[in-house]
Amino acid sequence: MTLDPDLKSRILQAVEDGFAEQVSFTQQLVQTPSLRGHEHAIQDLLFRNLQSRGYAMDRFKMDRAAIEAHPGGSKYSDDHSDAPIVVGIHRPRDETGRSLILQSHLDVVPEGLHDMWDDPPYSAKIDGDWMYGRGAGDMKAGAAANIFALDALRRIGLQPAATVYVQSVVEEESTGNGALQTFLQGYTADAAFIPEPEEEMLVRANTGVIWFQVQVRGVPVHVREMGEGANAIDAATRVITALREMEEDWNAEKGDHPHFEDEAHPINLNIGKIEGGDWASSVPSWCNIDCRVSIYPGRSAEDAAREITERVKTFAQSDNFLSNNPPKVVFNGFHAEGYVLEPGSEAEAVLERAHEEAIGAPLQSFMTAGYLDTRVYALYNKIPALCYGPKSRNIHGINESVSLSSVKKITQAMALFIAEWCGTEDITP
Amino acid sequence: MTLDPDLKSRILQAVEDGFAEQVSFTQQLVQTPSLRGHEHAIQDLLFRNLQSRGYAMDRFKMDRAAIEAHPGGSKYSDDHSDAPIVVGIHRPRDETGRSLILQSHLDVVPEGLHDMWDDPPYSAKIDGDWMYGRGAGDMKAGAAANIFALDALRRIGLQPAATVYVQSVVEEESTGNGALQTFLQGYTADAAFIPEPEEEMLVRANTGVIWFQVQVRGVPVHVREMGEGANAIDAATRVITALREMEEDWNAEKGDHPHFEDEAHPINLNIGKIEGGDWASSVPSWCNIDCRVSIYPGRSAEDAAREITERVKTFAQSDNFLSNNPPKVVFNGFHAEGYVLEPGSEAEAVLERAHEEAIGAPLQSFMTAGYLDTRVYALYNKIPALCYGPKSRNIHGINESVSLSSVKKITQAMALFIAEWCGTEDITP
Repeated sequence: MTLDPDLKSRILQAVEDGFAEQVSFTQQLVQTPSLRGHEHAIQDLLFRNLQSRGYAMDRFKMDRAAIEAHPGGSKYSDDHSDAPIVVGIHRPRDETGRSLILQSHLDVVPEGLHDMWDDPPYSAKIDGDWMYGRGAGDMKAGAAANIFALDALRRIGLQPAATVYVQSVVEEESTGNGALQTFLQGYTADAAFIPEPEEEMLVRANTGVIWFQVQVRGVPVHVREMGEGANAIDAATRVITALREMEEDWNAEKGDHPHFEDEAHPINLNIGKIEGGDWASSVPSWCNIDCRVSIYPGRSAEDAAREITERVKTFAQSDNFLSNNPPKVVFNGFHAEGYVLEPGSEAEAVLERAHEEAIGAPLQSFMTAGYLDTRVYALYNKIPALCYGPKSRNIHGINESVSLSSVKKITQAMALFIAEWCGTEDITP
Repeated sequence: MTLDPDLKSRILQAVEDGFAEQVSFTQQLVQTPSLRGHEHAIQDLLFRNLQSRGYAMDRFKMDRAAIEAHPGGSKYSDDHSDAPIVVGIHRPRDETGRSLILQSHLDVVPEGLHDMWDDPPYSAKIDGDWMYGRGAGDMKAGAAANIFALDALRRIGLQPAATVYVQSVVEEESTGNGALQTFLQGYTADAAFIPEPEEEMLVRANTGVIWFQVQVRGVPVHVREMGEGANAIDAATRVITALREMEEDWNAEKGDHPHFEDEAHPINLNIGKIEGGDWASSVPSWCNIDCRVSIYPGRSAEDAAREITERVKTFAQSDNFLSNNPPKVVFNGFHAEGYVLEPGSEAEAVLERAHEEAIGAPLQSFMTAGYLDTRVYALYNKIPALCYGPKSRNIHGINESVSLSSVKKITQAMALFIAEWCGTEDITP
């Protein structure tokens, strides 16, 4: 049942009318730091904002044992967050429509070097169309959009005619365990929607992501006898070379993977962090490299992890030093499979109509090579999982920002989507 | 005036008689941790031990401004020690002999990974002929030998017939500023002697050493857009490759440098420490590498530093990313020129006789490619500077140890050297 033109106009205007408030709330979210493990305050902020709107509230911890026992669960490390998961629940008077999960994550990635930023990373400064700050795009603008798309319907006296869960999670940037916990807790619906910064496009296919650390140990000696010792930093750089070969091999297989065959380089291996040695004048005895690599949808994380371990082992056997001191591979974060949103779902059709109305152009879909929580809904809830959101710049980078005009249009598309997907009913009959 | 056979025997026996006590004191030194900046307690321990023997005592701070203004001074960094320099002074009744500096350093290098050690790094455990522990060889055994070689003369009622300075410094492992401060303070003598662990050989030539840090900055992005960002860790590994070319060029010049022409690889570049990036899933925006390289004697540190800076600059200009983001080279430690002990000095002749008596074989000399404090005495005091000491294993490494039988023989050689170099007088005439 498509929306009638008058309702569509009223919804678009209602988003417009609430947008100043939405921008202000987004700024408040950006100004609240929420690095991994430090999302307690912001989750409470979101809890209060949902509760004050009258939603039924649920708040729960992640269950480490259940997560680690699940094939989609990532191993815990010391850095794992124990901030709670927050769910605000709208229940209609009459459950006549299709239910919906609106998910966001409020954890953000590290700021990087502050002196590279034009303004402090949590300034939420607005310059023209752009709001700046770590997490502005990824994905505090989306977290606010979830709430304000629903608010727009309320503003014109309507509410979804089906259950809507507004789910705010953490650990999206490191393990995906937050989203998995909502599944383990039993939350499900007829579709899931996550407004990540996707350039006003729909994610058609998404790689899995694996984190691992390679730990190299060497035999340190005085530099004057350098030939006799093994430099663990030098050895680690040789392991990197071997891992880059694996990356190339995986990219060479792209023809076998629908949605990836036209990408120049769909599989990215990132050497994200390196630490080794104690000081300049000792041959370093240790070096750890933290890596992140993507895997094609359809390949289990377990299988890919096995190959990574095997590759490092095989390379080490061919290396003079490493054969006697085999490096250790530790999986310490993402252990997640990718997914494909199969074309043809009714949920996608509804989003196509909403998008065209709000943006004025046909909806495009694309492949993205980063982790997305939508994989939980696609793989385990087995429901249509739509990842779609605003234009952004430099997410995970310096001077991250999000386009406010795009956020407004995306919120309009979301409000239209909710109205058609869930149907609407009057707030006061 | 060579020593008479009876006196030689008595001196050898006196070292023997004091050796149990010497081993015990060496253990106490090894059991006292003295990493850079944390040598206060051990310098006080040495102060008390010298003072209790009746030496006149001097204790003074390093003078940063004077050190940094001196061509042999190394730049300070935040890690620079401010532990004091300790000097114990023996003055004879009649100044008839040649004066002497006996120097040691009590700072030690980092332990490396503790779990790689068979026993804790400060155990000072004795197993057969070997005493284990960080600093056992480099150079707490030598610091004790300085004191116990003089004690041996006392044990037979003798003392040097010339002024002897027992100088205990710090910062030998990182800048050489401790030894330089003794020069700036005005301490000098007719010769200097440092019992570093030199395998019972005399150091003929010694490289200079330079520390520097290369700081690479990148433009971080989300891993999904990796091609657009520059990975600072990857860029740093390219800089390492360029530095290795410089190392090879310098080694290729070895034919022009007497005492180095027969060494397989006299110039060592050590990538001692690396740190970069914040976590696995962000393209790293920064990477710092801490390097240490040796330079031939006769080349000033300033000149070598200029070439290092120039090499990094030139390489960066040829690199797509680095040309827009030139790395910074910071000199943050050793800035020291090498030296040659010219053959033919009377000091060396005296040591040859002492060595042959104590060890039973002719004294051999060799080139060493690490920093030595003797450079201060050779280059600035312009006096014969003898670096000669016991057999050791794995200095700067794991399970560092020193041979106790070698320490005993070296101490005997030192006592004989002192007796002949300074001459002797009775303690109570």
